[in-house]
This record gives sequence, C-alpha cells and structure tokens, in this order.
Amino acid sequence: MNYYSESINNLIEELAGLPNIGPKSAQRLAFHILNLPEKRVERMAETILTARKKICLCERCFNLSDQKVCPICSNPKRDPSTVMVVEEPSDLAAYEKTGQYRGLYHVLHGAVNPMVGVQPENLKLKELLQRLQREDIKEVIIATNSTVEGEATALWISKYVKQAGIKVTRIASGVPVGGALEFIDEMTLFRALEGRTEL
Amino acid sequence: MNYYSESINNLIEELAGLPNIGPKSAQRLAFHILNLPEKRVERMAETILTARKKICLCERCFNLSDQKVCPICSNPKRDPSTVMVVEEPSDLAAYEKTGQYRGLYHVLHGAVNPMVGVQPENLKLKELLQRLQREDIKEVIIATNSTVEGEATALWISKYVKQAGIKVTRIASGVPVGGALEFIDEMTLFRALEGRTEL
Repeated sequence: MNYYSESINNLIEELAGLPNIGPKSAQRLAFHILNLPEKRVERMAETILTARKKICLCERCFNLSDQKVCPICSNPKRDPSTVMVVEEPSDLAAYEKTGQYRGLYHVLHGAVNPMVGVQPENLKLKELLQRLQREDIKEVIIATNSTVEGEATALWISKYVKQAGIKVTRIASGVPVGGALEFIDEMTLFRALEGRTEL
Repeated sequence: MNYYSESINNLIEELAGLPNIGPKSAQRLAFHILNLPEKRVERMAETILTARKKICLCERCFNLSDQKVCPICSNPKRDPSTVMVVEEPSDLAAYEKTGQYRGLYHVLHGAVNPMVGVQPENLKLKELLQRLQREDIKEVIIATNSTVEGEATALWISKYVKQAGIKVTRIASGVPVGGALEFIDEMTLFRALEGRTEL
C-alpha cells in the first residue's frame, strides 16, 4: 500500500488488525475517520484510551467495569440471592438485553477446555465458590454456552454448588423461538423433548 | 445499555458511530480493544490522532496525503504526461491495486450532482484545468464512476480537455471479468457491444 502516505497506511493497518475488519473495511473506516472533524477524532481517541485505562473487573461478579463494583452489583433493585453464571461479559450483555433477569451475575471469563489448556483454576470458579460461602445465595443459574466446554463447565459448577446445599439450575436447551423443526439438529430436538414442560 | 459502566458504553457508542459497524459489531470491537494490552491501545489512539492531524490533500493531485505532495506525485518513476481523473481517493486506491497504471492522478472529491447541490465549483475541477495549462499533459483518462453523476462529470471534463487540445479518454464500460451475460443488466450489455474491439 505504498500509494498512501505513511500515517494513512498506519491507520489502515491498525484498523485492519481489529476482529472482522478486512482490508477493504479498514480502508473505508480510515477514510471515514480522516473526513471527521479533528475535534471529533480527538474525542474518539480519548474515549478509546479512557475506556482501556479505566477497565477492570468488578470485584464481585467479574463483569467488565470501570468501578470496583459494577453497575449491576451495586444496583439495590437487583436480587442478590440469585446468581447467573456466564462465560463472558458479552453473554451477560445478551441476558441483560432481555430485560427479564433481575438477579446478579458471575462471569467466568471462559469455559473449562483442557484441549487449549483452560483448566478450572484459569477461570473465576474459585471466586464463585467463595461467593457461595460469603453471600446469601439461594439459586445459581448456570448459563454457560450449550457447547461441549460449556456443558463440562456447567457440570463442574453444579457439583460444587450442590455440595454447598444451594439450588442450582441450568437454562433450558431446546428449539429457538421461530425455529422450524425440520431445520433443527437432532441433539437440540432431543434436548427439547427431554426438557418438555406440562401445559 | 446501563449494564455496562459509562466508559465502556462510551466506547461502544463511539465505535457504533463508524460506517457499517452495527451495535453487535461495536460491542465485539469494544471487548477486543478492552482486552488488548494498554500499550497497544495507546498506540492505536496515537495512530488515529496522528493520521487525522497530519492529513491534507496533495497540492498537485488532491489525493489524501500527509505531505504537501503525495507519494505518487513525488515518485520520479511515474509518467507525469498521463493523468487519470477519479472521484475519490478510494478510486485511486482501487486503480493502484491493479499495479498496471504508471501515470499520475487527479482526485475530484465527488462528482457533479445538482440534486444534492454538488456543482462543478465544489469539485477539484478548476484545479484540473489549471494543471492542464501548467503541466505537460498528453492524455487525460477519465475514470469517474459509471453512474449518472460520474458520466455527467466525465462529459463536463472532456469538453474542457478537448478545448485545451489534449487527448481525453474514458475507461471502458462493459461486462466485468468473470461476469455471466445472463446476469448483466441491459445498459451494461449495450455498452459492451458499443465498445467492442476487433480481435
């Protein structure tokens, strides 16, 4: 790309390093940024820096936060007796978007995956067990992904939560809303049958 | 999005303001950035700022540049007697990627479009006519887009270039390489027929 000046090349390369941004998108983004007013670009750079500098994990639920305790954990309207365990902050965000869950969370930052070297001790599992002792938790809802790793992690957690004498539940597996049966894999259909509820 | 801390929200909103970045992509990009080492994020912010601060238009061809004269215009290996007229810097980039064009460029920064108030005087057309007088140009290749506006602009330019006694050409319209005739619109097929060359 020697047809651009160096600083433009650097910008395009920097943007192309982001996930799901190919060279064409990077170029389009770069031209967009170069066309913005300088004040606006200063604000953008500042926002990126500030977010990265302030970022930390909530010391209670390990959600991404810029305070010691995240907005969810510090919200007095949330029910602290229910804890939903998720793999990633984006899973938490997905559940928050439903607007239906009023309890707290616990973010593991991954799932047990010995193939790539992720052992229970690499996740925020010890911290979850500590919360079970310290906090007055009535139910742990396991919302890890419906993958091999997610299921293995769910199993691991459920064992310890049961030992602590606390109710443990797993989010339902089944046919997605709007899903046509004929296009759904057998494993999901089997799970949907298993998890059937009385009407 | 009150389930994220303010600085994370700000970052997601900032990224969602970029073209072709929806809310989901913005969130994914934000999490990616927040996971990068702090030094890396500082470099990113710096690259964005530097590119925007240094950006200017090449005083000869009006390509985006961080120097008074862009790398193409200042390259002694390029042929200054041929000038390709394009609408945008990204069009120039597209032709540079072919690696086949060795002349210089002239970037108009748009096309004549009275519907949205873009008149010839809003484009770098006066500057093109000045170049025709000042520089020793033998051929002007018009590579504006094959749209109504691009064609109107091409017509406008060709009139003045001809008046200056300089050869003026238009890039060919026709069937794209790999294009199957049955899926190609009639106007393109007509142009391809009109522009047929002897074998």
